[in-house]
Amino acid sequence: MKEVFSTDKKRVRMAVLGMGRQGQIHSKNIAYKIPEAELVCVSDISIERAEKVGIEGVELYDDYKEILERDDIDAVVIATSTDTHEQIIKETAEAGKDMFCEKPIALTLEDIDEVLDIVDKAGVKFMVGFNRRFDPTFMRVKEHVIDGNVGEPHIVNITSRDPKPPHLEYLKVCGGIFFDTSVHDFDMARFLADEEIVEVYAAGSVLVDERIGELGDLDTTMINFKFANGAVGSINNSRKTGYSYDQRVEIFGSNGCAVGKNERPNQVELTNPEGTHKDVPLYFNIERYPEAFFGEVKAFVESVYNDEEPPVTGEDGRKAVVLSIAAKKSYEENRPVKVSEIG
Amino acid sequence: MKEVFSTDKKRVRMAVLGMGRQGQIHSKNIAYKIPEAELVCVSDISIERAEKVGIEGVELYDDYKEILERDDIDAVVIATSTDTHEQIIKETAEAGKDMFCEKPIALTLEDIDEVLDIVDKAGVKFMVGFNRRFDPTFMRVKEHVIDGNVGEPHIVNITSRDPKPPHLEYLKVCGGIFFDTSVHDFDMARFLADEEIVEVYAAGSVLVDERIGELGDLDTTMINFKFANGAVGSINNSRKTGYSYDQRVEIFGSNGCAVGKNERPNQVELTNPEGTHKDVPLYFNIERYPEAFFGEVKAFVESVYNDEEPPVTGEDGRKAVVLSIAAKKSYEENRPVKVSEIG
Amino acid sequence: MKEVFSTDKKRVRMAVLGMGRQGQIHSKNIAYKIPEAELVCVSDISIERAEKVGIEGVELYDDYKEILERDDIDAVVIATSTDTHEQIIKETAEAGKDMFCEKPIALTLEDIDEVLDIVDKAGVKFMVGFNRRFDPTFMRVKEHVIDGNVGEPHIVNITSRDPKPPHLEYLKVCGGIFFDTSVHDFDMARFLADEEIVEVYAAGSVLVDERIGELGDLDTTMINFKFANGAVGSINNSRKTGYSYDQRVEIFGSNGCAVGKNERPNQVELTNPEGTHKDVPLYFNIERYPEAFFGEVKAFVESVYNDEEPPVTGEDGRKAVVLSIAAKKSYEENRPVKVSEIG
Amino acid sequence: MKEVFSTDKKRVRMAVLGMGRQGQIHSKNIAYKIPEAELVCVSDISIERAEKVGIEGVELYDDYKEILERDDIDAVVIATSTDTHEQIIKETAEAGKDMFCEKPIALTLEDIDEVLDIVDKAGVKFMVGFNRRFDPTFMRVKEHVIDGNVGEPHIVNITSRDPKPPHLEYLKVCGGIFFDTSVHDFDMARFLADEEIVEVYAAGSVLVDERIGELGDLDTTMINFKFANGAVGSINNSRKTGYSYDQRVEIFGSNGCAVGKNERPNQVELTNPEGTHKDVPLYFNIERYPEAFFGEVKAFVESVYNDEEPPVTGEDGRKAVVLSIAAKKSYEENRPVKVSEIG
Repeated sequence: MKEVFSTDKKRVRMAVLGMGRQGQIHSKNIAYKIPEAELVCVSDISIERAEKVGIEGVELYDDYKEILERDDIDAVVIATSTDTHEQIIKETAEAGKDMFCEKPIALTLEDIDEVLDIVDKAGVKFMVGFNRRFDPTFMRVKEHVIDGNVGEPHIVNITSRDPKPPHLEYLKVCGGIFFDTSVHDFDMARFLADEEIVEVYAAGSVLVDERIGELGDLDTTMINFKFANGAVGSINNSRKTGYSYDQRVEIFGSNGCAVGKNERPNQVELTNPEGTHKDVPLYFNIERYPEAFFGEVKAFVESVYNDEEPPVTGEDGRKAVVLSIAAKKSYEENRPVKVSEIG
Repeated sequence: MKEVFSTDKKRVRMAVLGMGRQGQIHSKNIAYKIPEAELVCVSDISIERAEKVGIEGVELYDDYKEILERDDIDAVVIATSTDTHEQIIKETAEAGKDMFCEKPIALTLEDIDEVLDIVDKAGVKFMVGFNRRFDPTFMRVKEHVIDGNVGEPHIVNITSRDPKPPHLEYLKVCGGIFFDTSVHDFDMARFLADEEIVEVYAAGSVLVDERIGELGDLDTTMINFKFANGAVGSINNSRKTGYSYDQRVEIFGSNGCAVGKNERPNQVELTNPEGTHKDVPLYFNIERYPEAFFGEVKAFVESVYNDEEPPVTGEDGRKAVVLSIAAKKSYEENRPVKVSEIG
Repeated sequence: MKEVFSTDKKRVRMAVLGMGRQGQIHSKNIAYKIPEAELVCVSDISIERAEKVGIEGVELYDDYKEILERDDIDAVVIATSTDTHEQIIKETAEAGKDMFCEKPIALTLEDIDEVLDIVDKAGVKFMVGFNRRFDPTFMRVKEHVIDGNVGEPHIVNITSRDPKPPHLEYLKVCGGIFFDTSVHDFDMARFLADEEIVEVYAAGSVLVDERIGELGDLDTTMINFKFANGAVGSINNSRKTGYSYDQRVEIFGSNGCAVGKNERPNQVELTNPEGTHKDVPLYFNIERYPEAFFGEVKAFVESVYNDEEPPVTGEDGRKAVVLSIAAKKSYEENRPVKVSEIG
Repeated sequence: MKEVFSTDKKRVRMAVLGMGRQGQIHSKNIAYKIPEAELVCVSDISIERAEKVGIEGVELYDDYKEILERDDIDAVVIATSTDTHEQIIKETAEAGKDMFCEKPIALTLEDIDEVLDIVDKAGVKFMVGFNRRFDPTFMRVKEHVIDGNVGEPHIVNITSRDPKPPHLEYLKVCGGIFFDTSVHDFDMARFLADEEIVEVYAAGSVLVDERIGELGDLDTTMINFKFANGAVGSINNSRKTGYSYDQRVEIFGSNGCAVGKNERPNQVELTNPEGTHKDVPLYFNIERYPEAFFGEVKAFVESVYNDEEPPVTGEDGRKAVVLSIAAKKSYEENRPVKVSEIG
């Protein structure tokens, strides 16, 4: 006796737009690891790159608009280049499809507000890709906050350093360290403390690579911020550790202190006459955050599947950008900037 | 423009026999994560269980013999119940297919020798599923040995404790703690030290559950062993930690000491007035060894794909059983047993 | 045959003024653990408290002036109450004796400058008690900086939190959190990075105890600072952890990152179904810094014994106060304050 | 006003016999850190070595018998060479003085029994110097056992490795690795589990230094033992780690697992591209066990001061030797040896 396995339950029919590294990761997660979803098609302006999806039976497009025209696609993951987000979000909203979009939503606050308004009116689900909220370590820290083990938050410290700077071409278009790096940490601070940040002060320098300074950007920063409840916090960023991704958080409160440390590739310690040695932490976001990349898309699929609000909203995406704008302004004017000044 | 992704490179066409928990894991790894392989079909005596494979397009059988008869299947993963291994290995060898088989090969040394002889004559590849050799932590310990960071091995200590005892039904047929648990640790000791064990002494007790003793089995053991080069070692096993899987190794030598510790689900530490707290290690083999389950099958596929010797041979499987027999004999006669006494 | 042990080598003859907790610690260290020194006498305005020295043969005074008049006393440790430091330093300088003084030197910058001028003119050795510089963990971090293992400093993070607030009576006279707590951390930042701080921004709140706020003080602060070389840093302080002293430092640079963690009373980990547990860090400064209290006085004695410059100078004491003044001003005016504004 | 501090409370008047490294440590602890005791005199066959005591006012003897004749000495610490213990214990007992004696009591079981009998009849207090029982880490492990956090003991693992072998001259007279090293670990196993060991099996090799083998001794051993309650255990010893003292214990039971790890000189971690590095553990017993050396003598003084039974008895000293004899016999005859065979 022989059968062929197939399923007829109604799954969310999905498309992934953009087949860069991130688009490929999302595609595999949808196709293989999320039973409630089905990866129907992907697009990339380069059809060769679209082929990188590497999953049997998936349909390939070089024009995402053709996908948006299909009636049988329920939801879309937008993993295209940053400068296209605004336009594609609008079109996806107009096509009436739910969407998950990599951050940032758009590059100016005005554009973000316009986009969120369109999404809102279209009544589609919209989720922003703050993947770190789905990292097992950071989720566990948050859980300690929710369970009351931290108590009322008093101090938040976030360390967020890249192993090495991105290419100069990327640096030119990324919007600067506050928008490219700190934006994630601002979201993490809001997420962990479950409080809104009301004031920001940012210091910074060019210590890693002079060319970063020549672009008008910084590579080493220290941000000081205040929450509405009076709690204080810091974010330190660097474009280059030399060792690996250094991603740690700490939230200290009236009941205790929860610390989220780096993950390492193994749990081995070697002791010899020179000391006790462990391997460096996982190299970069691809290595450190696979569960988070999976978790965020899974959460999106579940929100569509169960017709619920996604756990990271457009408003979350907007707020992190507002804080990045405040940080930049603070650095430029060397003064603390109230978030209410920005909008 | 629209294409549908497909590949025409020649992949290893595979079948998985037995759709228990392990068979399902192997199936997903082959289907989704090993590009050199293609999962064509699976079997289980229960067709309902075969359906658990959950992968679109895979063919389902309730009789593995029909799979062995197919000419278009290159290699087979045997994940059926222990008592069927011997028979299926023979038939697979006779069908001329390469195979990966969960341990143990068979239940007596005579049967193992017969099976290995048949496999050898058939000239097919044969790999035994000692998954722990592919755990990132234990691989890194081994790497330290290979790199000379440990030097000449002097002492090996292996801690291997289950979170809770298996069901009594399983306990009745598993062959006892030395065959069911220590066998993995004997393989680990040989793997890490790259030396052969020549003598074994085993002590043990029933401290966890009296019913285990009523079956003539033990639930708590301490094995002392000697390597050919004079190095010494210990293995301690327990059927019940109450917390989670406790799987640690240590190899100490003339140059240093490499320790492989437990993995935890996250890297969070909470400090409060009661102390500093981390979550317990990963619960059991499913949680602890996903990379190892993937790695062993990947290594098998690569050996088939590249026509190379698999990294864990039938001889490795045999040796671990010989050591388990020696341990049992040592316990029963309360004396050190030379491995040469066994065969 | 019987002898009685005695020594005739010329040791530094010392007195300790003030027999509070700190004075007692210094007395015992001098009497028992520093062979180059001899504890001749101690003083306290309460002769009953002077008796707490508990060391056979030590002479007790209720008036330190009588000690300063003695010709056979070479050096003095000033461990009296903060408000007496200024006066006693002056008198000790005029008496021509070398001295080690607990911080702070005096309460205003004008007073400090006057005191340091007198000390300078008297040509006596003067060392300020920044004990943490002599903590084995922080010394090792500094050693990594000196050895080039950190490289050019980029980021310094200092966590410094007390287990519980001091008594209100103490809070009223201590000068506030920036002078009582952060002053140590500013010294640590200068010590570790071997750079001068040029600008400070301080945020803070009252989250622990309203009565602290009623005194015009803060109990939770986050300081952001910049070094002359462009490196940035943060100091977070809290008056209450609830668990124990939380004293950690981190210095990140072009070559690596050195982290100094808390010390615990033992190295025990208990794993049970609730998790893996360690005891809280050492409770407070008495428990955490015994080696540091010993090391600072030993360093002072050695500088007298060998006629060398003490390793922590009056200028170091002054600079830490300048930074505390800058922090307070920054908090009050909610703006970054350049150190050059202070003096 | 001037006084000179003195005390007239009745303290235990003590003598230390033997001014080797250990005798000096005991002398300083008694003189400086134990208020209930007074160090009156010390002895050494070399008066020059007696002078090493370095404590003002202490009387020096080159003949301990003169000390035993003094009526004003209450208690004696015996820190002379091993071969003199038996004789001096007898004489001290006959002099009616309480005593603390470094292990071993004597070199044969017959001699130990004779000595303990004399001590018993003399009715003096007698404590054996198993210092590790007073190490903060091991005490905390024991506390977890007492508090029920470990539950019924199932498995004990003890790692006990020296940084480097002692001099050959010492090796010739120390009685071999089982008497010189394992004896401490047997005591630790009994102490932690609060159970008696009933059977021992020992394996061992010469892997560190051939000259140790030429003396008929071993340098690398693995001991397997059984407790009366059925729990099992292991002790692994090595004469040379190359790095430092490796002293760890683990006790696993029905409720949890308590692990005592090595102490390090500081709590610093350096992360650079090569990995994350800590300094090696504390070098040897002098560095690792200062609190334990203090604690054991303090416990002895308190037992004399309060007229209570010392916490480590002659019987404890005897039992550890019995286990060492069993281990040696087991190794020589390559078979498990019941403790009841020894006596």
